[in-house]
Amino acid sequence: MKNADVVIVGGSAAGIEAAITAQRQYKLKKILVIRKEKQALVPCGIPYIMGTLGSPEEDVMPVSLLGDAELMIDEVISIDRGAKSITTGKGENIGYDRLILATGSRPVVPPIPGADLANVFAIRKDINYLKQLRDALKNAKDVVIVGGGFIGAEFADECRKMGLNVTIVELLEHCLYLNCDEDFCIRIEDAMREVGVKVNTECRVASICGEGKVEYVECDKGLRFKADVVILAIGVAPNTELARDAGIEIGEKRGILVDQYMITSDPHIFAVGDCAEKFCFFTGKPTATWLASVATREARIAAANLFQPRRRRNQGTIGVFGTMIADTATGVAGLTERAARDLGFEVVIGEAAAVDKHPGSMPGAKELRVKLIFDQSSRKLIGGEACGGLTAGEVANVMAQAIAAGMTANDIAISQVGTHPALTASPLVYQMVNAAEEAVVKLP
Amino acid sequence: MKNADVVIVGGSAAGIEAAITAQRQYKLKKILVIRKEKQALVPCGIPYIMGTLGSPEEDVMPVSLLGDAELMIDEVISIDRGAKSITTGKGENIGYDRLILATGSRPVVPPIPGADLANVFAIRKDINYLKQLRDALKNAKDVVIVGGGFIGAEFADECRKMGLNVTIVELLEHCLYLNCDEDFCIRIEDAMREVGVKVNTECRVASICGEGKVEYVECDKGLRFKADVVILAIGVAPNTELARDAGIEIGEKRGILVDQYMITSDPHIFAVGDCAEKFCFFTGKPTATWLASVATREARIAAANLFQPRRRRNQGTIGVFGTMIADTATGVAGLTERAARDLGFEVVIGEAAAVDKHPGSMPGAKELRVKLIFDQSSRKLIGGEACGGLTAGEVANVMAQAIAAGMTANDIAISQVGTHPALTASPLVYQMVNAAEEAVVKLP
Repeated sequence: MKNADVVIVGGSAAGIEAAITAQRQYKLKKILVIRKEKQALVPCGIPYIMGTLGSPEEDVMPVSLLGDAELMIDEVISIDRGAKSITTGKGENIGYDRLILATGSRPVVPPIPGADLANVFAIRKDINYLKQLRDALKNAKDVVIVGGGFIGAEFADECRKMGLNVTIVELLEHCLYLNCDEDFCIRIEDAMREVGVKVNTECRVASICGEGKVEYVECDKGLRFKADVVILAIGVAPNTELARDAGIEIGEKRGILVDQYMITSDPHIFAVGDCAEKFCFFTGKPTATWLASVATREARIAAANLFQPRRRRNQGTIGVFGTMIADTATGVAGLTERAARDLGFEVVIGEAAAVDKHPGSMPGAKELRVKLIFDQSSRKLIGGEACGGLTAGEVANVMAQAIAAGMTANDIAISQVGTHPALTASPLVYQMVNAAEEAVVKLP
Repeated sequence: MKNADVVIVGGSAAGIEAAITAQRQYKLKKILVIRKEKQALVPCGIPYIMGTLGSPEEDVMPVSLLGDAELMIDEVISIDRGAKSITTGKGENIGYDRLILATGSRPVVPPIPGADLANVFAIRKDINYLKQLRDALKNAKDVVIVGGGFIGAEFADECRKMGLNVTIVELLEHCLYLNCDEDFCIRIEDAMREVGVKVNTECRVASICGEGKVEYVECDKGLRFKADVVILAIGVAPNTELARDAGIEIGEKRGILVDQYMITSDPHIFAVGDCAEKFCFFTGKPTATWLASVATREARIAAANLFQPRRRRNQGTIGVFGTMIADTATGVAGLTERAARDLGFEVVIGEAAAVDKHPGSMPGAKELRVKLIFDQSSRKLIGGEACGGLTAGEVANVMAQAIAAGMTANDIAISQVGTHPALTASPLVYQMVNAAEEAVVKLP
């Protein structure tokens, strides 16, 4: 029987990062990555295959990232926990000392009549499937995107860059409503409309219709949208069958249950990434946050703990994400105001806007608006949103560090930031600092 | 006698920020700002007046920033600490309850023969003087910049954008040698040379020569550079005469001595910005860090403490700065490796480079290289440098938060960052995280 010290099931972002970290931390261990796909895609790059990158080949994660870890293209179909071995679809039986499950997630396909018609696509992380989607889009005129979360909105933006007539149908009050507060959602929706994307919110798809292939989408309120292609972007579900079949515990949010060290109910088996249950940094409760950056972080934690337990502890998921839609960059860290209130926090808000270069006459200067959410009782930062210029992504990372460090509004108001005319707002109006200043005077 | 609750002497970045914060924190207090200049320039924008902005008027800080604070254009010539009043050049006598000194700094003019020739300029924050410099540059062909710190290098870059033949003469081993480690300095020097700036390091100016106006610069090693204009950019000295004449204590680095609450040796007088002595976050010892972002932070601290002492404490200056030279952005937070070693730290270095978008085929992707400096005994981050793409400025701010929070290499390796194809590196290679991972395995 073939053997490896560490067997990693899945070779997308989480699996690759687990392999990298395991090699870094345990140089002498033999590491084997088993994945179904010959080529794995940069997951966050998938929308950009359509317009910006032009082909899925431009979005492939290089195998060289795996270093000395062995890569096997096969599917793990069962785990024998007693024997500490796995079996693959091709009939291989492989022993492990430690097993890391990085089986990822798959798109949720809603039970809409007609969802099985030709030219209706979910967003599968599969290079051939995405080639079909790209080819279908190349021959299309009208495309309807079901779901206006950030993935749906990014696809919409890419499709309009291809010259398509794009309609988003979103069930909730706003696009990106699970990621941002209303005012930020509206700003992104406005930016999308300005570049020609048709945005329909509080709109439910009743059926996808056509003869053999999709022709139009029927919604409630009597709306009907012409569609040569439909893209379903309504979310993902963790792939947990393998774990479930092996009797490993599953969590409330349908991910594989893990402790703070990323260990499952079997002490020799870890789970990381989209397939693993997540716990909220702020409440300790299960949360659904499927992001590549969360996945790779979990992989760094799990892999460090493989043979020396408790070296790295997961204090819970803050949730930091960025997006770029209709030339508008957005970065978010932690809780939105709405989510914080829903969780029972009494919040105090600080807001500030300023151009992202200084003086404002610097070429390319663009407004960056920042909102900070503080917990009134502890005065600590629990969330932040930035929207506008291209630095929004890294500004969210500044926020995330402040959240992780437990910084209060006053701490942030006198935090040490560097500024430069071509790179940031002026020190007089640096957005995070001024938003914190606004909160300081509002805090009781 | 005229009276104000708070009199602020100086109305550049620090003075303006003090006025803004004082109003925010103490709404009912009467605040008076007295400055010599009718118009104050955005200090960091001064180099950009020459090429990018085109005129000093584009770099003026709007008076509207002052809000309800009164602005008086006059020069404070003496302080009567017993009477708690100041006297101005125009003969006004004004009483204060609290006084904030924000008198700034002035350029050091080195004792080089010929430094008084026509067309030899220091970098004064004076709109008319800078107009003369800009006009002289417009009529020039060859310009020599004495001093290759970041201000000198920024001026060099702007002058070459104007089509001038630019030569930098720097005394130290490298340009920006007080801000960055050698490898980063070399990268910036290479970028400058690539765009045509002539860089001469370890080179001392012997004399500036010409008939009435400058014609050439004589250096050691037999070097001589043609010059229609010479710009002296060798540093600044705090303006402390007013404080000194009033018997207020001066520090070792020639700034006005202040405690952690920005209070001078007189309990009713505060000092902030370039005129105030600074203390190092890492050692508690006096340090020379003249940056607008440091100045405004001190102003936020001082103004909050005006009438309710010890509300904000300065834990010492980390020193966070950004620059953009020859299309290469640089951000630095805290100590360089060299500075850390000079201060007696045993350091462990982590480095990582990756493109600032992902996949690397995303348009506009540029390498961003990151170096992190950890104190071996505490394992804490004490410095970081980022160089390459435009996000380097905000990445330095992520580093600064990590330094302030006392994050270790392991903390940073599993810190929560958001990533996005158009905004950041991939989560697999996010530079700060991977640099920390490198340090983790090197730390004993």
